[in-house]
Amino acid sequence: MVIAASQLAAELGMTLIGDDVSLSRVAPLHAADGDSLSFLADRRYRERLAGTRAGAVILRAGDAEQAPCAALVTDNPELAFARAAALLHPRTRPAAGVHPSAVVDASAVIHPSASVGPLCVIDADAHIAADVEIGPHCSIGAGAQVDEQTRMVAHVVVCPGARIGARVLLHPGAIIGREGFGFAKDGERWVRIPQLGGVRLGDDVEIGANSTVDRGALEDTVIGDGVKIDNLVQIGHNVIIGENTAMAACSGISGSTQIGARCTVAGAVGMAGHLSIGDDVHFTGMAMVTRSQPNAGVYSSGIPAMPNADWRRSIARLRRLEALQQRVQRLEQLVIPARHEDDPAQPPTQ
Amino acid sequence: MVIAASQLAAELGMTLIGDDVSLSRVAPLHAADGDSLSFLADRRYRERLAGTRAGAVILRAGDAEQAPCAALVTDNPELAFARAAALLHPRTRPAAGVHPSAVVDASAVIHPSASVGPLCVIDADAHIAADVEIGPHCSIGAGAQVDEQTRMVAHVVVCPGARIGARVLLHPGAIIGREGFGFAKDGERWVRIPQLGGVRLGDDVEIGANSTVDRGALEDTVIGDGVKIDNLVQIGHNVIIGENTAMAACSGISGSTQIGARCTVAGAVGMAGHLSIGDDVHFTGMAMVTRSQPNAGVYSSGIPAMPNADWRRSIARLRRLEALQQRVQRLEQLVIPARHEDDPAQPPTQ
Amino acid sequence: MVIAASQLAAELGMTLIGDDVSLSRVAPLHAADGDSLSFLADRRYRERLAGTRAGAVILRAGDAEQAPCAALVTDNPELAFARAAALLHPRTRPAAGVHPSAVVDASAVIHPSASVGPLCVIDADAHIAADVEIGPHCSIGAGAQVDEQTRMVAHVVVCPGARIGARVLLHPGAIIGREGFGFAKDGERWVRIPQLGGVRLGDDVEIGANSTVDRGALEDTVIGDGVKIDNLVQIGHNVIIGENTAMAACSGISGSTQIGARCTVAGAVGMAGHLSIGDDVHFTGMAMVTRSQPNAGVYSSGIPAMPNADWRRSIARLRRLEALQQRVQRLEQLVIPARHEDDPAQPPTQ
Repeated sequence: MVIAASQLAAELGMTLIGDDVSLSRVAPLHAADGDSLSFLADRRYRERLAGTRAGAVILRAGDAEQAPCAALVTDNPELAFARAAALLHPRTRPAAGVHPSAVVDASAVIHPSASVGPLCVIDADAHIAADVEIGPHCSIGAGAQVDEQTRMVAHVVVCPGARIGARVLLHPGAIIGREGFGFAKDGERWVRIPQLGGVRLGDDVEIGANSTVDRGALEDTVIGDGVKIDNLVQIGHNVIIGENTAMAACSGISGSTQIGARCTVAGAVGMAGHLSIGDDVHFTGMAMVTRSQPNAGVYSSGIPAMPNADWRRSIARLRRLEALQQRVQRLEQLVIPARHEDDPAQPPTQ
Repeated sequence: MVIAASQLAAELGMTLIGDDVSLSRVAPLHAADGDSLSFLADRRYRERLAGTRAGAVILRAGDAEQAPCAALVTDNPELAFARAAALLHPRTRPAAGVHPSAVVDASAVIHPSASVGPLCVIDADAHIAADVEIGPHCSIGAGAQVDEQTRMVAHVVVCPGARIGARVLLHPGAIIGREGFGFAKDGERWVRIPQLGGVRLGDDVEIGANSTVDRGALEDTVIGDGVKIDNLVQIGHNVIIGENTAMAACSGISGSTQIGARCTVAGAVGMAGHLSIGDDVHFTGMAMVTRSQPNAGVYSSGIPAMPNADWRRSIARLRRLEALQQRVQRLEQLVIPARHEDDPAQPPTQ
Repeated sequence: MVIAASQLAAELGMTLIGDDVSLSRVAPLHAADGDSLSFLADRRYRERLAGTRAGAVILRAGDAEQAPCAALVTDNPELAFARAAALLHPRTRPAAGVHPSAVVDASAVIHPSASVGPLCVIDADAHIAADVEIGPHCSIGAGAQVDEQTRMVAHVVVCPGARIGARVLLHPGAIIGREGFGFAKDGERWVRIPQLGGVRLGDDVEIGANSTVDRGALEDTVIGDGVKIDNLVQIGHNVIIGENTAMAACSGISGSTQIGARCTVAGAVGMAGHLSIGDDVHFTGMAMVTRSQPNAGVYSSGIPAMPNADWRRSIARLRRLEALQQRVQRLEQLVIPARHEDDPAQPPTQ
């Protein structure tokens, strides 16, 4: 798609500084050519601006002077770039209709504008709303509801009765509504507790590739509007996640934990079950979350990797920490009590 | 399904206290109505009992007096509830037979009572026993054996030659019998070692969504009877897991590690390879298991998440731990040796 | 396949010591019979050699004398065994051609020697080269390129435009080219940044079961030749991995991190984004990698699991570490300054 810089400025509320230019694609500053739109959001890459061959660059007002080309000025360059990229590289929508190889139950209701790809299975009483796109090899369980404009890329499993909001994006291999991990003990044996709750994904949710969201045990698992979840993430039964929270890959949330709105969870974070995490809580990578954190803030744990020999010494020192405490206590007994008695042999304090 | 409380009592060995009542569904204490069966297993929720509107509640004898409704008394309320829920909400079995869209090799043997769903692939010489249910998009490799009443929900891959016990539950995306991660070095290059062992799942095993169980290198990977494995878990080649062990989501077991019976492995635990873990060993979440643990008990590691500023200070202090040890040693040299010489200038000990 | 030990020796550059013998399968030392080939690579298993009933054993020269059977001598027994096993147990290749149940776009180009399994989807303009094997339920996106002899076991998703090298092995559930996790903030809401870069897998790459490799944002994600990746691993957008690096299961690499050649990453390692890891860097299991590591070496973090009571005490001691430092400081103030003043009441130093 070819779009003039002036048109992007008009559509996205930016100010064009410099001559207008036709743009046909996006590219990073160092690889852009005269047909390319680039952007500068992170000040660390500022030095690349002067050398860019881009036709136009989206940037903040303070950076515009350094631009060797047309400058598109905005307060939020990353957002404007995201929208400009979507305009320059529009996604091709598949044709509406059900592919002849798909297996669709007679009772399923599929909006004529929806697209159901090859080799999909749509089970009884499923509802597929307008403009939904379902890629190849997806399986939509009985009674599931999928709202407008939602897209499932490929190989997605939506289990029976799941409710998927509008404009949701489910990446390949995502599994929504698995019967959760709940068992009662019968002597030494585990007996499955039927998982009768549902799963609800709000509008504008994303679930990453091969991520899993379990249905609730008695009540629902709920993923709030605008929540973004990366690949290989596990969401246990009855978890509730507030609006616009984002979770990076390889994290896992145990059952019945509630997370507030606008939280960020970095990669490989683990959360115990039945916790309550407030709004605007941020966990750094590999954090081990064992307690509720009602208050906004940044929380962390873990020891960064170090050379193996240092690590071995460090582990050994940790093991000797108790002994060290006892040595300090002995020293205190030797040094400090006497002072209280004003012993003249006592080292003076300053 | 409508069932009288008295009938549940009779079938599940409970004592009914109070008037009989018809029950049609299960619900938690706070959301139950007069047609609902609820339960009280965890004493933390005891205060909810008095206010419930449930028709009947399963609970222990000591809690029966507080019930404002019919009480079904048992020593193990969670187990009785699991069974009652299965009676009140029976799962609909799919019709027996092979869906016409499935691709079944002529040499595969499928019991007439088994159900093979749409778009499945059953390869040569696979054996599917009575009452097996295979959901959509499953792939059963050549020569695989699936025993009675096993259920594969959807999108399950059973690799060639795998042996799956009876009453096994394989959740969507589970992959059983992948060729394991075994390589020989040829200079700088890795050369795959053919993985010729098998994989055997005992009876009553569960494998969670998108979990992976590798086949053995020369001998078999073995998952014992009654083992329950959650989502996104990796089981390496030649791992052996004892009966009724349970593993929560996001854990990984490296090759050739053996785990005993009745163990529990919480979420995101990592185990090195070639370890030997005894019976009744329990690992808490995110434990880093680098050594064999032959003895029963609870094992843990990891530092719980804390406010980021505290964490930064804590990491810095750990880095200074060696210096701290040296400072204590210097103090000891200053304070302690003199005492041994009965130096009169020495602080007195008490 | 029956092969004489002498023939294996000739084909794989080994020296046969002892009588020739016909071999029909491989087995470990303790389970081998007279038709079996076994091997001894790890000296820890040396004691098993004398008792083996194998027909022949691959081993190093120094171990040959202890062999109670034919010895096949080589400097690299594991490599020779890997190759011998592949000769004795050749994999059955599926027949060339496209299974009639596969859905193939008219514009896709599939080499006649390639095999496309049942219920696959091959989208527009995809190119499938000679001798490629694609198992059941795979989905190859529009414009994807798959080079010679690459094998996809089952349920693999290759997203549009992905480039897959020759002799690549993609295990079940692998997802190549997912649109990565990139968002701009619009107030409290996340707006997806179109992911327009590609993904390239070199030759001889392996991607494990249910692992995910994201496509780049603007430029490509690149997995170098000979890289081996285990199950349930996440590779973020714009990650670049050098040749012959190997990564074990459950690890995750955040976006834009670059890893050198010949690295090894053990299981459940987490790497932050935008890092630069040099060649020949090795991370032990569960390492938390938050900084660039340009230098070759072994890096580690994490505290090994210990009995729960010890762990609780250890966590408590860590929390008191600041207090301990302060106690040592106080002792120093009491003990050390005086010495500098030559106070006669000062404990003597030796």
